[in-house]
Amino acid sequence: MPTLVLIRHGQSEWNLQNRFTGWWDVNLTEKGVEEAIQAGEMLAEKGYDFDQCYTSVQTRAIKTLDLALEAMGRLWLPVEKDWRLNERHYGGLTGLNKAETAEKHGDEQVHIWRRSFDTPPPPQEEGDKYDLRQDRRYAGIDIPNTESLKDTIARVLPYWQGTIVPDLKAGKRVVISAHGNSLRALVKHLSNIPDDEITGLEIPTGKPIVYELDDDMREQERFYLHER
Amino acid sequence: MPTLVLIRHGQSEWNLQNRFTGWWDVNLTEKGVEEAIQAGEMLAEKGYDFDQCYTSVQTRAIKTLDLALEAMGRLWLPVEKDWRLNERHYGGLTGLNKAETAEKHGDEQVHIWRRSFDTPPPPQEEGDKYDLRQDRRYAGIDIPNTESLKDTIARVLPYWQGTIVPDLKAGKRVVISAHGNSLRALVKHLSNIPDDEITGLEIPTGKPIVYELDDDMREQERFYLHER
Repeated sequence: MPTLVLIRHGQSEWNLQNRFTGWWDVNLTEKGVEEAIQAGEMLAEKGYDFDQCYTSVQTRAIKTLDLALEAMGRLWLPVEKDWRLNERHYGGLTGLNKAETAEKHGDEQVHIWRRSFDTPPPPQEEGDKYDLRQDRRYAGIDIPNTESLKDTIARVLPYWQGTIVPDLKAGKRVVISAHGNSLRALVKHLSNIPDDEITGLEIPTGKPIVYELDDDMREQERFYLHER
Repeated sequence: MPTLVLIRHGQSEWNLQNRFTGWWDVNLTEKGVEEAIQAGEMLAEKGYDFDQCYTSVQTRAIKTLDLALEAMGRLWLPVEKDWRLNERHYGGLTGLNKAETAEKHGDEQVHIWRRSFDTPPPPQEEGDKYDLRQDRRYAGIDIPNTESLKDTIARVLPYWQGTIVPDLKAGKRVVISAHGNSLRALVKHLSNIPDDEITGLEIPTGKPIVYELDDDMREQERFYLHER
């Protein structure tokens, strides 16, 4: 039975400041580093092991993976980094904290953007302080300037199907270190969660989610590692 | 002109204890971590950048690369890890310190093993404390049980030719984080250094070596970054 483990990156500097982060490349906090190491220790302790690792091109997810792998003695495993596992792009909200967003757009609107399945926030303006269109890491990629969760799913799933599923079908044990919304995209698909429920599903940082998958690569069993 | 940067991993725990390390997977010391970060800072400061990274499957080289990349804001770059960039395998000497080796084999013999181009140390016995034949990282690979520098070259160069050269020919800027002897193998080839000279060439830890290569992928210019 194929085994897949998902890890949401540990606490980041902007998680702590309650700012919309999206694609902006913030680092882990000390607590985030600790969470990542503990995730790795827990995985090793419970006998989990991997053949292939995936992560986004964002530092907080890459470091979470590296720290977990090092704690497992598995820093040598192959890692593929891809922007399609990035966090949801928060458009013009990127960089704003909760109070600033509420002041600018009103509480109700912010709630809609946070919890709607298919309403994207206003697009990020070109030349915005947090505009990444000139970032070399995205050279040659037509990157979004805002995303709804639906949009995020639309770029995560082709990567899942085209790149990760073949590994699982080949018998590889896979770990994915990613973000709240790119993991929501996967969980929605794997566990067949309706549109109006997935936006409310909270994925805790640094707690490995274990999937045992059936032959169609859908959930047979799913659990948080610490719950066992 | 293709640019290639070589970095020897920062100080390891066994460098410090003067023990033959070879394929044994020791970690960096705090000084080694510092050296790796400084290498990255220096590369960024001097305007170096990369498209593809290579390293061995040994923790000390992987961490050196990751720390340098993080210091450059380039943790998102693709990294390929391969055993053919591993340190020279020191066979039955693995784990012994200088005094132990001299006591067991005599100073003169140890000097020969250290400095001969084609004399391997005695093979590592199966089941030796430092035997890695059962390590999952080498599953399916017919790993050596000892190596001369010549043997090391014989497995580094096919990887260089088959995997790294095509990247350089495609215009990618490449960094390789590896070990004293796997880097000697490359330097010997790139700079056309004779057999009896290469064994005496010391490659300092954590100091990036920059190669500007000609169209035949041989040295046009070579310098240590700190010397400029």
